[in-house]
Amino acid sequence: MGYQYWKYETLNALCMDAFRKFGFTEAESGIIKDVLLTSDLYGIESHGMQRMVRYHKGIESGMIHVDAKPEVVFDTPISAVIDGHDGMGQLIGYFAMNLAIEKAEKCGVGIVSARNSNHYGIAGYYAKMACNKGLMGFSCTNSEAIMVPTFGRKAMLGSNPIAVAFPADPYDFMFDASTTVVTRGKLEMYNKMEKPLPEGWALDKNGHPSENAPDVLANIVAKAGGGIMPLGGSTEQLGSHKGYGYGMICEIFSSILSMGGTSNTCMVGGKGNICHGFAAINPAYFGDPEAIKKHFSEYLEEVRESPKADGAERIYTHGEKAANAVSVRMREGIPVNDNTMVEVLDLCKYLDLDFSKYFGDYVPPVREDVFKGNY
Amino acid sequence: MGYQYWKYETLNALCMDAFRKFGFTEAESGIIKDVLLTSDLYGIESHGMQRMVRYHKGIESGMIHVDAKPEVVFDTPISAVIDGHDGMGQLIGYFAMNLAIEKAEKCGVGIVSARNSNHYGIAGYYAKMACNKGLMGFSCTNSEAIMVPTFGRKAMLGSNPIAVAFPADPYDFMFDASTTVVTRGKLEMYNKMEKPLPEGWALDKNGHPSENAPDVLANIVAKAGGGIMPLGGSTEQLGSHKGYGYGMICEIFSSILSMGGTSNTCMVGGKGNICHGFAAINPAYFGDPEAIKKHFSEYLEEVRESPKADGAERIYTHGEKAANAVSVRMREGIPVNDNTMVEVLDLCKYLDLDFSKYFGDYVPPVREDVFKGNY
Repeated sequence: MGYQYWKYETLNALCMDAFRKFGFTEAESGIIKDVLLTSDLYGIESHGMQRMVRYHKGIESGMIHVDAKPEVVFDTPISAVIDGHDGMGQLIGYFAMNLAIEKAEKCGVGIVSARNSNHYGIAGYYAKMACNKGLMGFSCTNSEAIMVPTFGRKAMLGSNPIAVAFPADPYDFMFDASTTVVTRGKLEMYNKMEKPLPEGWALDKNGHPSENAPDVLANIVAKAGGGIMPLGGSTEQLGSHKGYGYGMICEIFSSILSMGGTSNTCMVGGKGNICHGFAAINPAYFGDPEAIKKHFSEYLEEVRESPKADGAERIYTHGEKAANAVSVRMREGIPVNDNTMVEVLDLCKYLDLDFSKYFGDYVPPVREDVFKGNY
Repeated sequence: MGYQYWKYETLNALCMDAFRKFGFTEAESGIIKDVLLTSDLYGIESHGMQRMVRYHKGIESGMIHVDAKPEVVFDTPISAVIDGHDGMGQLIGYFAMNLAIEKAEKCGVGIVSARNSNHYGIAGYYAKMACNKGLMGFSCTNSEAIMVPTFGRKAMLGSNPIAVAFPADPYDFMFDASTTVVTRGKLEMYNKMEKPLPEGWALDKNGHPSENAPDVLANIVAKAGGGIMPLGGSTEQLGSHKGYGYGMICEIFSSILSMGGTSNTCMVGGKGNICHGFAAINPAYFGDPEAIKKHFSEYLEEVRESPKADGAERIYTHGEKAANAVSVRMREGIPVNDNTMVEVLDLCKYLDLDFSKYFGDYVPPVREDVFKGNY
């Protein structure tokens, strides 16, 4: 599986043209594109350009409604519930997070829960929106069931990522992680590499640990049982109940407060049914925001500078790798894998866009059937 | 190590008398006692009666100031910062959580951060206080550094538990877990049993995985390096960076927003320097609280009733085990281990309380030196 490096501007032009062709406005296309490409810039390939095909299929199948506008169905000075009306997740997320930010700027805190949405990309994007305004940001989303609860054998929760961002120098703190031990994308990667899965990742259809990637993936697609373990594995010894608990906290902020669909009802019967949670907290409601930021930055620095394990070169704080990745990729380009480019070529044909306008005489390879069962 | 079962009323009488003798008022003694015994009722032995000796030593050494009153040093309708003035953690926690609850009842949300405190018992107690009023409750606390950050070899964060409670039938959802893979108490248990530690729990002073409990504990006490792994282990493969991230989120709500001491400064130089975070969120600010509770209860029931792994009898939801433990222990008594009873006997002598008034002719065994290096 080869990679080509493309300039940010090239991918930006392609995404803008594609989303406009799908029927989104200029402003809407800009938002969706920014969520996607920010993910690629952060180095989170799974949620970037690689997902174009998913949105393509979602729009084509009618799961994603291009014309839907998010509606505020419940509103207070510090909270809101949004009905996304099956719109594009990024637009619902962007709208909801801005509402949370506005409330936090006026009242100190804003909490917004959204239902009837679709995949919204990386949770961290929305948490970072608040952080960019000097606020603490929080976001989470439920998703198609893939996490098997402790002692279970059927996936009942999604990968249910939780993201938290808080202003700091020289890197904002930005935590963004699935509450499963890994995401499905990691299983797919091992499948492509024909390697056994590491111990502690996945369960077979009987709820036993499995290292067989194709088997686990096939069961997930067929909803035959099994799935991915919660952060902490499948037994209480390493804290399985903790990852499972964080997954449930994600449901509270997304599907429960919004009265929306829980993960076990997501992506069933042609409906996304996905829910998100958002919060912004204003540090000025606790003291001098600059002093708080400095206090946090100093602690993060102490942690980074603390003694390393034998053989380890550095200790990272959350958000540091992403910040570094952005500089490198803006300078050296964004790597996109050839199989993704095959999908982009298909997309261009579907939307009547000239592939060569963006990618010159590059010809994607004959498609390998690596995405089998991915959607 | 034997256990004796004691009636709740017996332990209640002892705790009330002991805390009054230490100089706390009747009301204060009632609060501290309730946090401790609730832990024993939940089956969390490590944070119950077993901790009496810790509070005894803390008060005796001057680390805990019996007369201190929590002071609100920053206040808004939705937030507050409290200076605990080195008082008893339970009193600061109770005061702070009640303030958060009051704010959430009036404004929808209350977030309170407290500094200059001491150990406050189980985080779940405070989250549950909000839940008992129909609110979502959150609490977290930092603590003496014991978590080694990913790729590090020196403990820089505490066990940093996070607790979240949300009303549900027939059991309130109550999540309460350290962000380390296990707590120090578990290491001490393996040490007492002279068993090797399970893989994935602890690190030696060079940052390498270790199964040697006495060695790891000795290094922790001597602050020689090593400690406990974050939830997710010591490498990114199983999500070490995730547990480390949750530990950092705990610091944000406790030590950062309050401008208090971070975990690496806790319990140093005779000062507790511990910080806590508290939040309450009112579901009525998102819709009909009864409908939301019903929606959540139905989902939890679906998870509990979902297919079990081969060999597993049931799937629990968070708070279920604790609720069951309370009924059993109120009926059959609370198990207290003999070594703890030795400490209780010492405490009675110190406070001039008549041990036999509570425990009749029971005589604790000669003390085994199992607590070496525990405090």
